[in-house]
Amino acid sequence: MSRHWSPIVHKLAPYTPGEQPQDRSYVKLNTNENPYPPSPRVAEALKNCDVDRLRLYPDPVSGGLIKAIATYFETTPERVFVGNGSDEVLAHCFNAFFCRDLPLLFPDITYSFYPVYCGLYGIEFRTIPLRDDFSIEVSDYTVANGGIIFPNPNAPTSRLVALAAIEQLCHWHADSVIVVDEAYIDFGGESAVPLTEKYDNLLVVQTFSKSRSLAGLRIGYAIGHPNLIEGLNRVKDSFNSYPLDALAQVAGIAAIEDLAYFEDRCRVIIESREALTSDLKGLGFEVLPSAANFVFARHPDAPAKTLYQALKDDGVLVRYFNKPRIDDHLRITVGTPAECRTLVEKLRTILNRA
Amino acid sequence: MSRHWSPIVHKLAPYTPGEQPQDRSYVKLNTNENPYPPSPRVAEALKNCDVDRLRLYPDPVSGGLIKAIATYFETTPERVFVGNGSDEVLAHCFNAFFCRDLPLLFPDITYSFYPVYCGLYGIEFRTIPLRDDFSIEVSDYTVANGGIIFPNPNAPTSRLVALAAIEQLCHWHADSVIVVDEAYIDFGGESAVPLTEKYDNLLVVQTFSKSRSLAGLRIGYAIGHPNLIEGLNRVKDSFNSYPLDALAQVAGIAAIEDLAYFEDRCRVIIESREALTSDLKGLGFEVLPSAANFVFARHPDAPAKTLYQALKDDGVLVRYFNKPRIDDHLRITVGTPAECRTLVEKLRTILNRA
Repeated sequence: MSRHWSPIVHKLAPYTPGEQPQDRSYVKLNTNENPYPPSPRVAEALKNCDVDRLRLYPDPVSGGLIKAIATYFETTPERVFVGNGSDEVLAHCFNAFFCRDLPLLFPDITYSFYPVYCGLYGIEFRTIPLRDDFSIEVSDYTVANGGIIFPNPNAPTSRLVALAAIEQLCHWHADSVIVVDEAYIDFGGESAVPLTEKYDNLLVVQTFSKSRSLAGLRIGYAIGHPNLIEGLNRVKDSFNSYPLDALAQVAGIAAIEDLAYFEDRCRVIIESREALTSDLKGLGFEVLPSAANFVFARHPDAPAKTLYQALKDDGVLVRYFNKPRIDDHLRITVGTPAECRTLVEKLRTILNRA
Repeated sequence: MSRHWSPIVHKLAPYTPGEQPQDRSYVKLNTNENPYPPSPRVAEALKNCDVDRLRLYPDPVSGGLIKAIATYFETTPERVFVGNGSDEVLAHCFNAFFCRDLPLLFPDITYSFYPVYCGLYGIEFRTIPLRDDFSIEVSDYTVANGGIIFPNPNAPTSRLVALAAIEQLCHWHADSVIVVDEAYIDFGGESAVPLTEKYDNLLVVQTFSKSRSLAGLRIGYAIGHPNLIEGLNRVKDSFNSYPLDALAQVAGIAAIEDLAYFEDRCRVIIESREALTSDLKGLGFEVLPSAANFVFARHPDAPAKTLYQALKDDGVLVRYFNKPRIDDHLRITVGTPAECRTLVEKLRTILNRA
């Protein structure tokens, strides 16, 4: 606390990201990173960068990257916005669309940054409980609102909402912006991007951090009607003209242009997820159906917190949330087959010990 | 305009950065970039980066970079905050310290992003006119306020405020935060960083974009009392956990550790500035005394806008501000000696033509 802070700062409850320990080497299955390196084209593109030109400001509108993203989605650049990771893109969405008189709606169990953004921008919100099976049921979202946001698939629960349900939301709430946060969509879901051509109130947010293996470079983007993109650009240009540095722009273009690598790695991760799910079930875990690069699982006989700590002591990081309804679950990122095997063997040992 | 925007978005008047034209090659003296490449250690550090590790999130607290900055300033890491360019750092400062009941004070002629931030965060502000010689006179800043900010040296005027004057402001306004935006301090000014040990209400913001030749990588930082740094971190962690990507962190460390290169390049730029000032005066320009890597000049017989356009047509970009009090001036970045000679020769031709 400090008399020098703006009043709002006293009330902020900042987001806590997953551990990024620097002390020792872990099998790191806690922050939903991709277990595979980025496309070889990224290394090539970075190697070819003229470091001397880093003395110059980057392209403030990230024109090349926006064009590459638009090409990938078979849309036009004026429907694309980019930012410094999807967290920044989401922050601008909250500011640009959700500071309204009616409350924002999102699930009670979801990405825990959403209520933090609400705190930052003074946005009133109302959480809608997930059903008992942790699914999002859109018919629970009929109340008047100043916006709706959820990840699809949801995090940390990994469950998917069908496109038809998203379309219903857009239809019911034509005056609200519906933001679908598709950080994990490439691991088995169907993207709502094509629906943005039909609904001017639908915005889809994606990231290079997961399926493009570029968490280290902080690239996020949003796709939607040009009016929504303009709203985001007005906020962005009132905050930071140059959110993406020159190397991130170059690497992002290389990553999204390598379609074959991207599709192959996603396929492998989906296969690993299915194998991991099966192995965990073999150990007695209940595992939610996942359309993401992580699984959400609980063991009926072993407290999640105990498992989390035992795994950590044993060199394997997974994510444990000390929160109502989910404090009996672990969120486990899908690693390489070898990493998944290590996890399963260590869990087997821990469970046998108990 | 869109019914989907938050009300505040309609009122935003976004910042317009200097041109970064992609169409042709210019002698680029319009955005105060360093004419010299970053330290050779930056290229070396980037070459040694393991691109495969970009699949992982970067260190969210930028611990290595913060330590390197603290070492350079002979201070401690808890007094250092880093962000995605000093524009982001400044944005967080406005949010963290200036959302108060009393108006923020800044000069009428200054970095034009300041009123934009005020628009974004709904901050009331009052501008204090520069004196007729474009100097900041701190005795004009005695009114009760919710904060004070100015660049030192000021932009686009290039004039410096003495440390004793800054100390007076800190003393007079103990309940306000005084932010000194030292983007250009390394080109001849004396930094207020040592004063931050004495005044808990003084925050100094600097950048790697100018004197460290890394505008392309977006690294800014702030130095001050740990309470102020904590306020910034609370805002940052409510906005984006990972503002600096992995490559920017590595490059930033390499840049700030190469003291000899940094000092040498600053010295050369200062010498070029003095030569440029002398040459411009030889052409009849009035040039303000500059402590920055740019000069602010007017020609009594030639409209600044005409000169700007003629130079642009001739392949030389400088900055022209279509604003009261300064629309007769040009802001000219100090380039290499060759670039400065090109500018001066083209100006000579243009002036002779007129």
